[in-house]
Amino acid sequence: MTRSLRVAAVSPEIRVGDLGGNLERVRDALRHAAARGAQLIVLPELATSGYVFRDREEAEASSLSRDDARWSGLQAALAPDTVAVIGYCERDTGSLSSDTGLLSSDTGLLSSHTTRLFNSAAVLTADRRLGDYRKVHLWGTEKAVFDEGDSAGLILDTPVGRLGVAICYDNEFPEVPRRLALQGADLLALPVNWPLVSRPEGEHAPEIIQAMAAARSSRLATVVADRAGQERGVSWTGGTTVIDDEGWIAADSTRGVAEATLILRGTADKSLPPHNDLFADRRPGLY
Amino acid sequence: MTRSLRVAAVSPEIRVGDLGGNLERVRDALRHAAARGAQLIVLPELATSGYVFRDREEAEASSLSRDDARWSGLQAALAPDTVAVIGYCERDTGSLSSDTGLLSSDTGLLSSHTTRLFNSAAVLTADRRLGDYRKVHLWGTEKAVFDEGDSAGLILDTPVGRLGVAICYDNEFPEVPRRLALQGADLLALPVNWPLVSRPEGEHAPEIIQAMAAARSSRLATVVADRAGQERGVSWTGGTTVIDDEGWIAADSTRGVAEATLILRGTADKSLPPHNDLFADRRPGLY
Repeated sequence: MTRSLRVAAVSPEIRVGDLGGNLERVRDALRHAAARGAQLIVLPELATSGYVFRDREEAEASSLSRDDARWSGLQAALAPDTVAVIGYCERDTGSLSSDTGLLSSDTGLLSSHTTRLFNSAAVLTADRRLGDYRKVHLWGTEKAVFDEGDSAGLILDTPVGRLGVAICYDNEFPEVPRRLALQGADLLALPVNWPLVSRPEGEHAPEIIQAMAAARSSRLATVVADRAGQERGVSWTGGTTVIDDEGWIAADSTRGVAEATLILRGTADKSLPPHNDLFADRRPGLY
Repeated sequence: MTRSLRVAAVSPEIRVGDLGGNLERVRDALRHAAARGAQLIVLPELATSGYVFRDREEAEASSLSRDDARWSGLQAALAPDTVAVIGYCERDTGSLSSDTGLLSSDTGLLSSHTTRLFNSAAVLTADRRLGDYRKVHLWGTEKAVFDEGDSAGLILDTPVGRLGVAICYDNEFPEVPRRLALQGADLLALPVNWPLVSRPEGEHAPEIIQAMAAARSSRLATVVADRAGQERGVSWTGGTTVIDDEGWIAADSTRGVAEATLILRGTADKSLPPHNDLFADRRPGLY
């Protein structure tokens, strides 16, 4: 049994530090993609803030808390039952997060560093906040800005199915997409900011090759929203891509948008007729 | 600290069932590659027997035991300290393998099925048999012919370093190359028989994409020896390829041989300067 799902990965213009302008451009991108029928819309990592921060203070100035009133402006751009995955710089002041370990159990006092920042992705519908994922594999100088999350990818039940979410460098650890697929993800939303690296003529960006391989290994369609252009001397790969559940590129980004209709099999169907099965053939006792 | 290693993946003509002829052609291929300076030579899966058996009996007729006298003919083709990895159909009559469980502990009697067959790879030098790997992830009708091994890939200390060995479908389980790399493999020898499957124009074979991704994820150079041409209606991919430790194709096969000089970093060096490390950045507690 298969179903079709219309997906869009969108790469709007993002300016580092321009929170207000980025929110407008993200909203416009969501509205445009939703109007074209996308049921799942993925935006890049740190889409509301930009990426190449001068320091932690600049990142904090472009951060949003989960309960910020401005989220509703983005949600208003969505059609009913459209799901959006949006990378953002998350500010957590601790008051809303008794589960985050901010309160020191040793002293009973609030940490002196009361605001934590995360490289997060919000999963939204028009009327609900389904969840937030906090990146755990931090790249480069991100460690100087962000705290790490506590889950290697996240799965959420959404109107488009069981949605896996990971961010950028997370997916270069083959354990992450594999784990999400084994836990029943129907597909993967992957906000990224891939810096352009050299590669041989004719090859895809290495991160795309890794995402294609992970998709094929676990029959896990993957929707990648990347940056394009440059930011403070960093050139982006422009890897916005929809990868189908056999690991092939269903759409890449012309004009900053990759749109495709994915044909998804049931989550549990990993069969390779007539004799094999991607998951049943695993030998977990030997790994 | 880096070192260079000259490797060759070779795809000689292999005819199903023609054990004697295949041994001759494998020997010639080994001699030719060794004469050209290869320190590691990889031959395809089931190189001595062919692949598309009509039934188990035909496979058994083309099988070799580990102590068959004919191995020495192949070893004689190698230069001192050259390492060869050769796929073969292994016959195990039980008498040499008290560790394989063939003797029934319940009855004390030999199983009625006294000969077991494995889809194996021999790792040889001119004067030593370093080890044998038995494929654990069996593809298609292989399950009707072969027993499964008991290790998901194998690592052997060899004159060319700590060599990982896996066979064909094994490497499509991302756990396998990852495990071998985490256990200290310097590089991976991968004998395969990849049936040709359809793919989009301009793309590599899917199994090559998976091997490139695995190589990059774990900085694990991979030497793939595949079949070419056809056998009993099965067309082979011709995917004989050397993949470097960044996941790029260092050589593919023109005229049935892929030769390259790999630059290998120390096994423990998975660093991505200035801030990252492929292995230290893992979050094993979260997988």
